Amino acid sequence: MKILTADGTSELELLETMHNRSTEIDRQVSETVSGILADVCTRGDDAVRDYTEKFDGKRPGALELSPDALENAYAQVPARFIESLTRAAENIRAFHERQKREGFITTQPNGVVMGQRVRGLARVGLYVPGGKAAYPSSVLMNAIPAKVAGVGELVMVAPPGKEGTVNPYILAAAKVAGVDRVFAIGGAQAVAALAYGTASVPKVDKIVGPGNIYVATAKRLVFGAVDIDMIAGPSEILVVADETADPAYLAADLMSQAEHDPLASAVLLTVSRKLAEQTLAEIDRQKAALSRREIIEQSLRDFGAIIVCKNLADCLCLANRIAPEHLELMVNQPMHWLGMVENAGSVFLGQYSPEPLGDYYAGPNHVLPTSGTARFFSPLSVDTFVKKSSFIYYSREALDKGKDDIVTLAEAEGLTAHANSIKVRFGQ
Amino acid sequence: MKILTADGTSELELLETMHNRSTEIDRQVSETVSGILADVCTRGDDAVRDYTEKFDGKRPGALELSPDALENAYAQVPARFIESLTRAAENIRAFHERQKREGFITTQPNGVVMGQRVRGLARVGLYVPGGKAAYPSSVLMNAIPAKVAGVGELVMVAPPGKEGTVNPYILAAAKVAGVDRVFAIGGAQAVAALAYGTASVPKVDKIVGPGNIYVATAKRLVFGAVDIDMIAGPSEILVVADETADPAYLAADLMSQAEHDPLASAVLLTVSRKLAEQTLAEIDRQKAALSRREIIEQSLRDFGAIIVCKNLADCLCLANRIAPEHLELMVNQPMHWLGMVENAGSVFLGQYSPEPLGDYYAGPNHVLPTSGTARFFSPLSVDTFVKKSSFIYYSREALDKGKDDIVTLAEAEGLTAHANSIKVRFGQ
Repeated sequence: MKILTADGTSELELLETMHNRSTEIDRQVSETVSGILADVCTRGDDAVRDYTEKFDGKRPGALELSPDALENAYAQVPARFIESLTRAAENIRAFHERQKREGFITTQPNGVVMGQRVRGLARVGLYVPGGKAAYPSSVLMNAIPAKVAGVGELVMVAPPGKEGTVNPYILAAAKVAGVDRVFAIGGAQAVAALAYGTASVPKVDKIVGPGNIYVATAKRLVFGAVDIDMIAGPSEILVVADETADPAYLAADLMSQAEHDPLASAVLLTVSRKLAEQTLAEIDRQKAALSRREIIEQSLRDFGAIIVCKNLADCLCLANRIAPEHLELMVNQPMHWLGMVENAGSVFLGQYSPEPLGDYYAGPNHVLPTSGTARFFSPLSVDTFVKKSSFIYYSREALDKGKDDIVTLAEAEGLTAHANSIKVRFGQ
Repeated sequence: MKILTADGTSELELLETMHNRSTEIDRQVSETVSGILADVCTRGDDAVRDYTEKFDGKRPGALELSPDALENAYAQVPARFIESLTRAAENIRAFHERQKREGFITTQPNGVVMGQRVRGLARVGLYVPGGKAAYPSSVLMNAIPAKVAGVGELVMVAPPGKEGTVNPYILAAAKVAGVDRVFAIGGAQAVAALAYGTASVPKVDKIVGPGNIYVATAKRLVFGAVDIDMIAGPSEILVVADETADPAYLAADLMSQAEHDPLASAVLLTVSRKLAEQTLAEIDRQKAALSRREIIEQSLRDFGAIIVCKNLADCLCLANRIAPEHLELMVNQPMHWLGMVENAGSVFLGQYSPEPLGDYYAGPNHVLPTSGTARFFSPLSVDTFVKKSSFIYYSREALDKGKDDIVTLAEAEGLTAHANSIKVRFGQ
């Protein structure tokens, strides 16, 4: 990882690098996935079984897991893990309860009643990856907001391992989060089953959750038939630090993000060249003990940077242009600077709010906009799982009062049948 | 338009027909649009001017309209139109003010401060079509929620006519709605200019508004670089009527939707065959006086239907499967049935709440989910124009209390650098 000085050019290069990490849509992948989608749409469960056998190694019998399977997994994983997971779930639930919103109604004395209803989606599908990317914390972060939103039925899919079973940590998390049904299927075939429905897998209204390129492509392709959440790019952290920051903490936090993925990005913006150098030294010192050292080194080399800026305001200004997924403000008065943060998925304030606190425990969601999209996208939330609908009731008297305006506007647009639907009610 | 009896088959056929009206993505259109996008991205204003000359007929000088142009248009259109537009804008603003939401903060005595901020997007682009589809009401419905949301700068684009000028009704509506800047450009080149920015057109964070297939395709293709609103399909109305409904009103309301587009769909579900027959007779009687009779006849023939159901509960059940953009409940006690409506963009209750009331005047938005997507999409709203962001502050004491849980969860996921970022703060 290099230390650069903010000079106009280095910032632009950083922006380019950070915002263009997402892999392009691959035509070959699209064609493969389209074929799977069409096949599952036509042949249903048979196709799902064929692809499961082909990609996951074993032909499944029943696709759905029994409630016993969740109970067994829950009993099988360490009690200490369940305790920690349960406390995290409580924090996540408490925070997301605050996001819940009611509809509203407005009434007028002349007989006008209007409003907006907000209701949970009827049925949602949650994709959970298998293998090394099987994260119980992601199950909580996706499932709990859905349940808080009042989703009628939350259906989880997760690919089976070689023995045909799903990771017990994932199943335990599904139980803690209140997932309603679990199917041991994965890949594009699982996305297709959720989008179109099969004899055993119910059709859902929305599909959320991370996945590999096949899953992400399948989600893109079924969008419209169902809704999907955003397609997450590689993860990133941006740390803004003044002289009061501890280089050991900075190094640890940068690496905690870098270990996710060789495409992950960890960037430090600081006002102190000395701190920049100390942080590099700390990275060297700490990384020896970390199990994912190679990924960390690759990520820091390709997508890591330390940029020394003139002052904190410049750091914040550049941070807003980068619009990072995670922004740590490791400065003396972090709350003072929060109002200057225009674009960031989640902001971590001060020395004792490292990003993993938010990844696992504090309560706000860890599914956040990446690659600069915090400019216009928002964290996963209860809002992700609701639909809104408006309603209008007008009395004859109220419509009479408004009728000339409506007719004027409709006729100005050349829509005479619109005008007619008002006039016919008043014998005009 | 035929009268059918609900028998299982006719409902399924209706669902098929209604949900498959959207035109497929056209490969040829995609290629043309991709070329335009790339060209505008590279050559900026020069490319925009070239395409404007090619598609709109006249090479433009300045792309942006002066504030005077808006004032002149406002002075030029009939005062009666401005009055009606202004009253409609007031109603729309009042309803959307109710959608506005604040962030929140939670604090705990051990030094935990967390919350969510909700802010308007910094800059939004509003596409307004030209020609026959130039609807001032759409300008209000898109622009007012953006302004209520607190969008920093609202930039409108609208294609110039043959003489290089924009429809004055559209410009007057832009003034009433509070649009900040207007550019006389249209088509895929306008979408590209908004998405990438040029010397004269500022880069935006989100692009909303309707458009033809080229505009819709351009929006799909720039999605990711900017956010977009949903891509609207052809419009539709579903009317549920009991014996108390007036067939003249039913006929007028069905035709008010059918006149939009030969692809529009107007469907009546009723418990009374007699009412169905009377409605058909009324359509024949009323349509003679309507200027868009041919479109109405085509739309009703291809995508219209009357289905006679056993009872109102059956009507509502089918309505929920159709998930219409507009749902009129022309029944004796409409409010009684509202709770049974699971899927609909906007619900119009009773004899004096015809759909054009909502299109122009009442206040709720007229940009609504089509083609069955009300199952998971929502009306355009203030929420369309905001971004949310969470923040987390933990004291040393609070992190100390949570640290073992975080380390347990991180290590269960094999993410030792995540665990390290907690441990390093406590000398572990």
